[in-house]
Amino acid sequence: MNRTTEITLESVQSAHRRIADYVIRTPVVSSSRLNHSTGLDLAFKCENLQHVGAFKARGACNAVFSLSDEEAARGVVAHSSGNHAAALSRAAQLRGIVAHVVMPHNSRVNKIDAVRRFGVEPVFCEPNAKSRQATADQIAADTGAVPIHPYDDPRVICGAGTVGLELHEQLEQIDAVVIPVGGGGLLSGCLVSLKSLRPELRIIAAEPAWADDAYRSWKSDSIQMPTRYDTIADGLRTPLGHWTFPIIRDLVDDILLATEEQIAAATRQMIEEAKLVIEPSSAVPLACVIANSDTFRGQRVAIVLSGGNLDFTTFFMLD
Amino acid sequence: MNRTTEITLESVQSAHRRIADYVIRTPVVSSSRLNHSTGLDLAFKCENLQHVGAFKARGACNAVFSLSDEEAARGVVAHSSGNHAAALSRAAQLRGIVAHVVMPHNSRVNKIDAVRRFGVEPVFCEPNAKSRQATADQIAADTGAVPIHPYDDPRVICGAGTVGLELHEQLEQIDAVVIPVGGGGLLSGCLVSLKSLRPELRIIAAEPAWADDAYRSWKSDSIQMPTRYDTIADGLRTPLGHWTFPIIRDLVDDILLATEEQIAAATRQMIEEAKLVIEPSSAVPLACVIANSDTFRGQRVAIVLSGGNLDFTTFFMLD
Repeated sequence: MNRTTEITLESVQSAHRRIADYVIRTPVVSSSRLNHSTGLDLAFKCENLQHVGAFKARGACNAVFSLSDEEAARGVVAHSSGNHAAALSRAAQLRGIVAHVVMPHNSRVNKIDAVRRFGVEPVFCEPNAKSRQATADQIAADTGAVPIHPYDDPRVICGAGTVGLELHEQLEQIDAVVIPVGGGGLLSGCLVSLKSLRPELRIIAAEPAWADDAYRSWKSDSIQMPTRYDTIADGLRTPLGHWTFPIIRDLVDDILLATEEQIAAATRQMIEEAKLVIEPSSAVPLACVIANSDTFRGQRVAIVLSGGNLDFTTFFMLD
Repeated sequence: MNRTTEITLESVQSAHRRIADYVIRTPVVSSSRLNHSTGLDLAFKCENLQHVGAFKARGACNAVFSLSDEEAARGVVAHSSGNHAAALSRAAQLRGIVAHVVMPHNSRVNKIDAVRRFGVEPVFCEPNAKSRQATADQIAADTGAVPIHPYDDPRVICGAGTVGLELHEQLEQIDAVVIPVGGGGLLSGCLVSLKSLRPELRIIAAEPAWADDAYRSWKSDSIQMPTRYDTIADGLRTPLGHWTFPIIRDLVDDILLATEEQIAAATRQMIEEAKLVIEPSSAVPLACVIANSDTFRGQRVAIVLSGGNLDFTTFFMLD
């Protein structure tokens, strides 16, 4: 696989202009308390404060607003029970088109509400990958709706890469950026934008040890599958895609791993010390940075907080 | 009592210059999810993301950096087990002077840690107002340390008023600002700065119904005492002061009250929907705005989130 020419700094910049009216330029904040307790110098790009509570709003808006009028008239379709589902529903509502969202029938009520909020009634399927894909394919065949993959799509990747553009504008000095990796949309988009603008910047991926497929893919130079699907960082359970993998392979400086305990502790530390609500997937970079704090000491480290959709009841039951 | 000429737009602007290097220009954020669920248009000034997790960092810095070298050499003293204690300890450490902080011996460990973090070992006293005051007075007499009141001090009020200055700079359009009132430092400081800059702006105070002393003081034109001290909005249990009352009396447009249930629900809603951790005292404005939503519909309403030092364990046990 070779890297595409469809995902470039220029295409991320176009995405940024395209979605400017539909996404929040999220703030970058620091916590002196967290810096004190970790002995580090950390800055957080707050995509937990983004629309739908996640960076996914960016990719979904870029994909939906990239469609021609003819395509848009046919609507969009995706299978997702996560932040992409809400983001795509919202983007479709903003453009005034139909979104079909396929979800397992046993999805949690808050995930279902997250799409209903944008006027979408999910299409329920069996809770397995085969049924999800088959249901989405059938809808696409029946309606002509355009499939929008949650990460392995150049429009989605370029949308996610706008996080990197804004970080570049918002932070004068950064030594390293640490980004969570699941399917790799956020990571590959930010690699393209940030490595183009600041080639010397170290960009490090952070992954749960229980979902270390990106690490193994990077080491083996081929896409590897996760071997288990039960990390609390539930946004990071997906494998890399054919668009995201080559970018990550070529551009990432390192991939660090965190244990479940480290991820839970980092989630809690962000909430209690930095006063920001994040979901466990977003705590993986902090968990990795704390676990490797000697490496990061004396550096200014930016962390992308990818989302804030924490299930409080479940999380605070963990202890 | 007449309003002072020591607390003016100019003195708030001087405070802003004095503390600029020591405080965070906190972001103003909105939550589309919270706007959707409340049917309102809300913007939040995030002092929960301030140093020590509260706006108190501003007043304490302004007071400490206003001292002459001769005064500073004698140190500062306060009795507080709340955010002022941590803020004063931090400000003293920044200036390199001694802070004496008097706290009840039964204070929670996290409150004690919040001052130890800045190199201050608290002086413990009996858990009653008389012992707190006597212990602080004794320290002032013995050491010459300058007492810094948590709110009833022009330097502290002017420091708190810088929140209003920044709001004015950060938000082009606002119809109303809602601010929590305890001792009235934040409210009176912001009344002075905001009413000077935007005389037409409605400024509304928000108070727990269980600590409605500011409301009764405003109605009766004289400082009234709280009748109970058990609201969960524990930063708002204090009476107005001789400096803060006349400003509030003359300038506030309204004072709204919230029940304990409304305050708890608003705290939770901010955390779960807006992804920002706040303490219950900071949720009183949101609680009041939701309880009076017809009044605020169609307006752009700014709310000052005064602090983020929530005791999670206690709070999530409430349900």
